Amino acid sequence: MISFDEASRKVLDYPLNLGDERITLLQGTGRILAEDIEADRDFPPFDRSTKDGIAINFSAIERGIDRFKIEGTLSAGMAQKTLSSDANCFEIMTGAVLPKAADTIIMYEETDIKNEWVTISKTPNKGQNIHSQGSDEKAGAVLLEKGTIITAAVVGVLASVGKSEVLVKKLPKVCVISTGNELVEVSETPLPHQIRKSNTLSLTAALEKASITPARLHLPDDRTIIEKELRKALAEYDVLMISGGVSKGKFDFIPDALEALGVQKVFHRVAQRPGKPFWFGIQSAEQKVVFSFPGNPVSTFANYHVYFLPWLAKTLGIDPKKRSVILDEPVRPHPILTLFLQVKTAWYEGRLHAKLVQGNGSGDLVSLTKSEGFIRVLAGESEISEGNVFWFIPYA
Amino acid sequence: MISFDEASRKVLDYPLNLGDERITLLQGTGRILAEDIEADRDFPPFDRSTKDGIAINFSAIERGIDRFKIEGTLSAGMAQKTLSSDANCFEIMTGAVLPKAADTIIMYEETDIKNEWVTISKTPNKGQNIHSQGSDEKAGAVLLEKGTIITAAVVGVLASVGKSEVLVKKLPKVCVISTGNELVEVSETPLPHQIRKSNTLSLTAALEKASITPARLHLPDDRTIIEKELRKALAEYDVLMISGGVSKGKFDFIPDALEALGVQKVFHRVAQRPGKPFWFGIQSAEQKVVFSFPGNPVSTFANYHVYFLPWLAKTLGIDPKKRSVILDEPVRPHPILTLFLQVKTAWYEGRLHAKLVQGNGSGDLVSLTKSEGFIRVLAGESEISEGNVFWFIPYA
Repeated sequence: MISFDEASRKVLDYPLNLGDERITLLQGTGRILAEDIEADRDFPPFDRSTKDGIAINFSAIERGIDRFKIEGTLSAGMAQKTLSSDANCFEIMTGAVLPKAADTIIMYEETDIKNEWVTISKTPNKGQNIHSQGSDEKAGAVLLEKGTIITAAVVGVLASVGKSEVLVKKLPKVCVISTGNELVEVSETPLPHQIRKSNTLSLTAALEKASITPARLHLPDDRTIIEKELRKALAEYDVLMISGGVSKGKFDFIPDALEALGVQKVFHRVAQRPGKPFWFGIQSAEQKVVFSFPGNPVSTFANYHVYFLPWLAKTLGIDPKKRSVILDEPVRPHPILTLFLQVKTAWYEGRLHAKLVQGNGSGDLVSLTKSEGFIRVLAGESEISEGNVFWFIPYA
Repeated sequence: MISFDEASRKVLDYPLNLGDERITLLQGTGRILAEDIEADRDFPPFDRSTKDGIAINFSAIERGIDRFKIEGTLSAGMAQKTLSSDANCFEIMTGAVLPKAADTIIMYEETDIKNEWVTISKTPNKGQNIHSQGSDEKAGAVLLEKGTIITAAVVGVLASVGKSEVLVKKLPKVCVISTGNELVEVSETPLPHQIRKSNTLSLTAALEKASITPARLHLPDDRTIIEKELRKALAEYDVLMISGGVSKGKFDFIPDALEALGVQKVFHRVAQRPGKPFWFGIQSAEQKVVFSFPGNPVSTFANYHVYFLPWLAKTLGIDPKKRSVILDEPVRPHPILTLFLQVKTAWYEGRLHAKLVQGNGSGDLVSLTKSEGFIRVLAGESEISEGNVFWFIPYA
């Protein structure tokens, strides 16, 4: 049995190098950019009006002129015009191109318009109300760096530079595998000694939040079938995420079958609760990784969050922020095991506070729905007083 | 012009009542439960072994027996057996049904097995290593209440009670509408006076994060076409989310067209920056809501987060936590306007700290990608010193 820290480090020693792929822009949200994105032209691409009003040449103001003849009206989307005289002005709308020979925009609120003439009621400053060409970004500037997470705002920038397709990091192909003869489908009515699958469904939902749509596979407690199905799955997927079948029971064939298929055990069993009988292995030549989680729902859920998600971030080259939380009650650590305890949180004045949620052991999936994340409590001898800070692993 | 607080309240005065719909379980993530979910049977449904080991009757221990004959092996998924004598035991695997007449499980680590006989090395406690029938939940107990957000953990619970379909709150049908003759498609090369659409794309990405896949529509600066298209959109969608066309310019036809179509203006212009020229209207008879945002990317983005998302939460009957953040620098409020300033954040000892990110005005979409959220700075006269706490509206 190894420590949680050692297990974490070992898992992060085996990121996959999956390469890149090109996808359409709106498929990109949540994905990781695999290319630098440059401005294809200046931003804004022209001197742009930021107000509705009139465009003038400021030299007229310097010469004492405060009344201008309207030469025409410019709206966004019209090609650039030229102001033919500094005695004239153009009416101009927000987003329109500043006309040549104009350099100042006065908003309607500071003007009085009668027929074709505008009188200004307030002396402008030269250059006001213009969003100058290239003032946000110059053509060729790197707007987004490789490794950026594609958020809604990033989608906006990608759109503005014409990236209707974008190069992103490939996600691993994941197969979520349930094991155990006691499991029946969600749509079935179980016999008294059977239960419905739930782990593979909650793992699937969790993976979809990470933009991964996994395949699902069920293995019966039969060594031959297990080996045959795992062989196929290893050929087809980058990651096998197995739930159940790794404790010490007679029917726990998974570790043996995996090793027979050339998956090398990196470790089995970690000094933690829940999630102790976690088996992690790799097939390094073929770039395959196997997360074999214990069958209990809370154990599987914890290990997904504390091992798989950090591994995925490493594989994709991102470094998510670690959150921390202040526990509003004392907590007793375990002398040997790292604990992952369920908490509910509340914001108070910029601080995130937490209270423990008592689950009913690692089989109690319902308690997970009443809590929002795990705190990590390191092994120790004496009670930790209230108000201490813990690493917080959110899942809601 | 009304205050931000008043505008917020008015928007929340008009939630829609969209009803419920039945969807398949794995479509449910992120949606809101519209039914209470009960345990269809006890959880666990039987006295369940939590260890791999042997099952005995504790009365044997009381009589001083420490050696048992193995009667058979029980694994998960097997129907319940009966222990025929308290001199016997069953080998039993994690997840298996406790046999009748057995009441205690001893894990393999505390036994010594030779041939058909097991000697125990440690005196057990009566009832140990059994997850008792109904100890998590009794049949008929409400496991999840109407109004619960469907997280990965909730999916697990729904699966375990056989909800392969689930009743959820309907989401609004949203049409995201861009306006302005200057806009071209992302895939096009714009002329010097044109720009590519970006707001509708970033709004689409943001809505998809909220599980809504919107339609997209573009309106040219033509009053007749605008009215015709808006009429169709109002017939088909619950929410119109319009970007641009609500400032005071000559070509800003949207408010007029909406009012001509029976959409009643609730307010126009809010004392805030960015996002001041926000127009909000309703067609109450037909249960339609119109968010008409200013055309500038940062304005649209801010208003989506400070108005639409709270409105959506109200419509769905949820009450998301308001986050707060500690600003690590002083900030000068505006004397009249509520400011939404872009910040980057960092966790430190359970506290969320922020630093301002200087954007280049409301046209600068790139600055949004370098920041993680807005803080709200209320109007005021004097500088607010560093270390103060602000409402934090995250978007990354």
